[in-house]
Amino acid sequence: MIKKNNAPIRRDNTTKTNATGKTGVKNKRKSPKKPFVKRQDPKVTPIAEGNIRIIPLGGVEEVGQNMTVVEYGDDILVFDCGFQFVSEETPGIDYIIPNTKYLEQNKHKIRALIITHGHLDHIAAIPYIIHEIGNPPIYAGNIATLLIKKRMTEFPHLAEIDIKTVKPKEKLRLGKLGIKFFEVAHSIPDSMGVSVETPHGNIVISGDYKLEHVNEVPTQKEYDNWGEIGKDNNLLFISDSTNAEMQGFSIPEKYIQSNIEEIIKNASGRLIIGAFASQFHRLISIIEMAEKYNKKVVLEGRSIKTNLEIAKIAGLLIPKEGTLIQAKDMNQFPPDRILVLATGAQGEEFAALMRMANKKHKFIQLNKRDTVVLSSSVVPGNEISVRKLMDNLYRHDLKIIHYKVSDIHSGGHGRQGELMWAAKMVGAKYFMPSYGNHSMLKVHAQAAKENGIVKEENIVVPDNGSIIEIQEKGTVMKIIKEKAPSNVIMVDGFSIGDMQEVVIRDRQTLAQDGIFVVIATIDLKTGKLRKSPDIISRGFVYLRESQEMLQQSRNLVKKTVEDDAKGMKPIDFDIIKKDITDNIGRFLLKKTDKRPIVIPVVLGV
Amino acid sequence: MIKKNNAPIRRDNTTKTNATGKTGVKNKRKSPKKPFVKRQDPKVTPIAEGNIRIIPLGGVEEVGQNMTVVEYGDDILVFDCGFQFVSEETPGIDYIIPNTKYLEQNKHKIRALIITHGHLDHIAAIPYIIHEIGNPPIYAGNIATLLIKKRMTEFPHLAEIDIKTVKPKEKLRLGKLGIKFFEVAHSIPDSMGVSVETPHGNIVISGDYKLEHVNEVPTQKEYDNWGEIGKDNNLLFISDSTNAEMQGFSIPEKYIQSNIEEIIKNASGRLIIGAFASQFHRLISIIEMAEKYNKKVVLEGRSIKTNLEIAKIAGLLIPKEGTLIQAKDMNQFPPDRILVLATGAQGEEFAALMRMANKKHKFIQLNKRDTVVLSSSVVPGNEISVRKLMDNLYRHDLKIIHYKVSDIHSGGHGRQGELMWAAKMVGAKYFMPSYGNHSMLKVHAQAAKENGIVKEENIVVPDNGSIIEIQEKGTVMKIIKEKAPSNVIMVDGFSIGDMQEVVIRDRQTLAQDGIFVVIATIDLKTGKLRKSPDIISRGFVYLRESQEMLQQSRNLVKKTVEDDAKGMKPIDFDIIKKDITDNIGRFLLKKTDKRPIVIPVVLGV
Repeated sequence: MIKKNNAPIRRDNTTKTNATGKTGVKNKRKSPKKPFVKRQDPKVTPIAEGNIRIIPLGGVEEVGQNMTVVEYGDDILVFDCGFQFVSEETPGIDYIIPNTKYLEQNKHKIRALIITHGHLDHIAAIPYIIHEIGNPPIYAGNIATLLIKKRMTEFPHLAEIDIKTVKPKEKLRLGKLGIKFFEVAHSIPDSMGVSVETPHGNIVISGDYKLEHVNEVPTQKEYDNWGEIGKDNNLLFISDSTNAEMQGFSIPEKYIQSNIEEIIKNASGRLIIGAFASQFHRLISIIEMAEKYNKKVVLEGRSIKTNLEIAKIAGLLIPKEGTLIQAKDMNQFPPDRILVLATGAQGEEFAALMRMANKKHKFIQLNKRDTVVLSSSVVPGNEISVRKLMDNLYRHDLKIIHYKVSDIHSGGHGRQGELMWAAKMVGAKYFMPSYGNHSMLKVHAQAAKENGIVKEENIVVPDNGSIIEIQEKGTVMKIIKEKAPSNVIMVDGFSIGDMQEVVIRDRQTLAQDGIFVVIATIDLKTGKLRKSPDIISRGFVYLRESQEMLQQSRNLVKKTVEDDAKGMKPIDFDIIKKDITDNIGRFLLKKTDKRPIVIPVVLGV
Repeated sequence: MIKKNNAPIRRDNTTKTNATGKTGVKNKRKSPKKPFVKRQDPKVTPIAEGNIRIIPLGGVEEVGQNMTVVEYGDDILVFDCGFQFVSEETPGIDYIIPNTKYLEQNKHKIRALIITHGHLDHIAAIPYIIHEIGNPPIYAGNIATLLIKKRMTEFPHLAEIDIKTVKPKEKLRLGKLGIKFFEVAHSIPDSMGVSVETPHGNIVISGDYKLEHVNEVPTQKEYDNWGEIGKDNNLLFISDSTNAEMQGFSIPEKYIQSNIEEIIKNASGRLIIGAFASQFHRLISIIEMAEKYNKKVVLEGRSIKTNLEIAKIAGLLIPKEGTLIQAKDMNQFPPDRILVLATGAQGEEFAALMRMANKKHKFIQLNKRDTVVLSSSVVPGNEISVRKLMDNLYRHDLKIIHYKVSDIHSGGHGRQGELMWAAKMVGAKYFMPSYGNHSMLKVHAQAAKENGIVKEENIVVPDNGSIIEIQEKGTVMKIIKEKAPSNVIMVDGFSIGDMQEVVIRDRQTLAQDGIFVVIATIDLKTGKLRKSPDIISRGFVYLRESQEMLQQSRNLVKKTVEDDAKGMKPIDFDIIKKDITDNIGRFLLKKTDKRPIVIPVVLGV
């Protein structure tokens, strides 16, 4: 979901309270039971002279929201600025982004934001963050630059950013720090690692990477690229852990593409290929293969169209005139000349593939002569929606080829064998696994130790916000006691802020058991209800079928209120409300085994 | 979640309305906008003489809620009665169970409920269904009998059931139908397939099964069991599809157990093994291995304890005195003599393993000398919670062995190679894949065709409620046009009934965007608000930080009401409420990009 034309509202937690916020806010409410307490993020002790700080602000407790900070002297460099898609645990939340409080506190020292590559988990939080950290210059490769600019157009209210395109082997001086880019293999062009020169040695940040290899022997290019970096005096290697749990080497993209080529070549009917829009290399090669085998290509899905448009601008894709056609014109060509390249291989409800599967696509009706190729893996958490997609596709009696039955997908991240090779090439004294869940980092760390890459005491496995200091002229590395603010920052509609636990918890309860609102009007003179109470409920039980229980609830409310009010002068609404909540909550639980949120509205007239 | 001491409330959809039920039900509400329409499930045309009906009432559009009906003449046999655990798509729902309306309509013909084995997806819906279908006798193997009886104790208000234990090779005559049980290999003892004799040939129902084999050669026992069935004149084979998408043969359980034995033998510290409670054979063997290597066993988690208790009653597990110890007594033994067998390998929030990982277990504190063995696969949908479990376990710097790094788990379902072997052995004329999602069934059907087991026109892939008829003395098989009622039946607390779409949809909306209740009191004489409106909101935004927006909302409500009321005599509350809903909904969307459910409460005084 893209937010347009509206400034995100940044909630500043310095004015936040520790009150629960649980009671509904009313107009003339009484003072809250707990006093408002200002919570100020403590300012972290400034870095000491000669020390180096590495602070992962995101991406070391999850796959996503990558951001790594390197600080030395008066200079801070920030690497990557991604978001993370969220799960059922945080209902309603759009994304999670890195907590940049530490950077906001040290804005004046930030020399640059450096982007390793153009994937969303490395760039997509830029609009939410860049101005908060003082709008430093952004350095990025060509494709990443184009993608960032494109993304910024979705936030037209924001001030201009200052972005500069860089290339592998380029060197920059940012404040007193020198940096050097180097090419890495990944699923998007212009992916780079970065080496930061410090007086005590270099900090090498891998970015996301895999290796080009033949039978687990890296290509000469890999030897050249990583060898060049390995020549330096490297102090610390920060390395991609996403696939560290998988042994050996990843399947080479070239092999994947040749398998897809076989499928394209032999297709006797329409071919519908579902793929990740982030797989630039593959998307481009599929279009080139389509041309080779004289097929027309229909692009379906916004992200694929956008990314290929950017590939065209970058000159990476130069389709022949007439190759790309509109879905509505498909029927002018025989089925074996049609290739549809579509989003939605994760079973996203409204994406192109699911719409086709559900017979809701305006132009594409599937039939048994079609072949669907799911050139993607299943992102953890999407298993059920992918299964649903497969079920719905099979309703058309077509053929499905997916990554479990054929080698038609390989991710962009190196497996353990590749990671160990690269770590050895870099030959740094210290090692920090990054980009992954804690378990992935631990497995990566363990592998580095067991493969003799680095000694156990020279490995650090941080959390988001951990401050790693390299001290004593590079002879000591440790996580210091202080931590950069690391509470989770969520994008929830236009609101951006740290974990609104109360709201999230309420959403979870509402999702399970719904809400039950009771409205009672008391005659202040008599202490009796003016009429039988009203009840409004959502997401609890099917009310039409629960008339008896509703009537009993009304009776119980009436009794509760009138019993309470009997002795009261004046009437204490808080007591009455509490009793309604308790009594009705208990009653409903007993009747339904559900615990809806019970909200009493008591009015005196 | 187990419901105790409370009769489930069965909602009868014959009295259900087609009204949306969306508006809050109030005390003296006006007549609903749509009239109440009685929806009666149409009665399916009775079976014609000589025909056979096969009706899968559950388990052919999902993995779970298995129930298959065989009908011939005056007799109906029902096979299995399972539930399905549910997903995020149906928030708050406990389980889904088969729709048994067809059986209720034909109660008098039901001769028996026959259970193939004791897993929850084959037995757990019995308490919700057995009395609805006339409490027919239940036939089940020994372990299944014990498990069913145990489950019924959780529903003490229900009348007695009539359950009879049967054994492989046993034959029964039920009405005019003969049935015969045969042993199959599965992860729980006493698993059986059933063959139903009809004048036109036998209907063979596999139940869940895999094959015991050595290097993909089935054992003599498998040849004997399936060969015996294959001798008959088999008309239709209904076969497990759960693992039909996986090529080859499953990993033999014996091999898994020998790998676990190696781990137990070599453990130099505590061993914590997480496993499915449903894996009876493995649990029993782990305890036997613990005894062999002189270890004490701590059982952690209710379902493992219950199932092993049942294994003991059945005489399948005879632990030596002192083998099983309590967690609180663990520290009396050196770590290398301790084996903990625990539930929670799916990352369930409150299960034993997660409590240990989160340092919330009363007696077990993990440390770096511990080894955790996750002897289980990841059930689709649980990837994120399993990842969280792994992250939290690795916080203790212990060692984790899981099924991706070592062969320590194999499921209970045969892969395609096994399924094809069994289908060939049975040699039935017709084939119906069962027990799985539609996509699994289609792959299974395709394999049966491609392997020459059965001709394409003799395969049927049904949906839940499809009525398959074998007609013309067994020479025709088809799905007839009529369908048994198949709307989804959900257990939601004590309520059992068909899909409450409105409630589920509300829960989903509440989970995403929350609720916003506006309470306005109008002075009936002046048409003005008596006071500024009250607002109650949950799960929407953090109200404490949204004071300005709340005030604007109040102003908007006031303006809406007073503008509306100005020309009204008498005041039309419905118009006012609709305008509040519209105006506030639009305002909140613009301000927050969220769409909470807006509920206006308008009172006149």
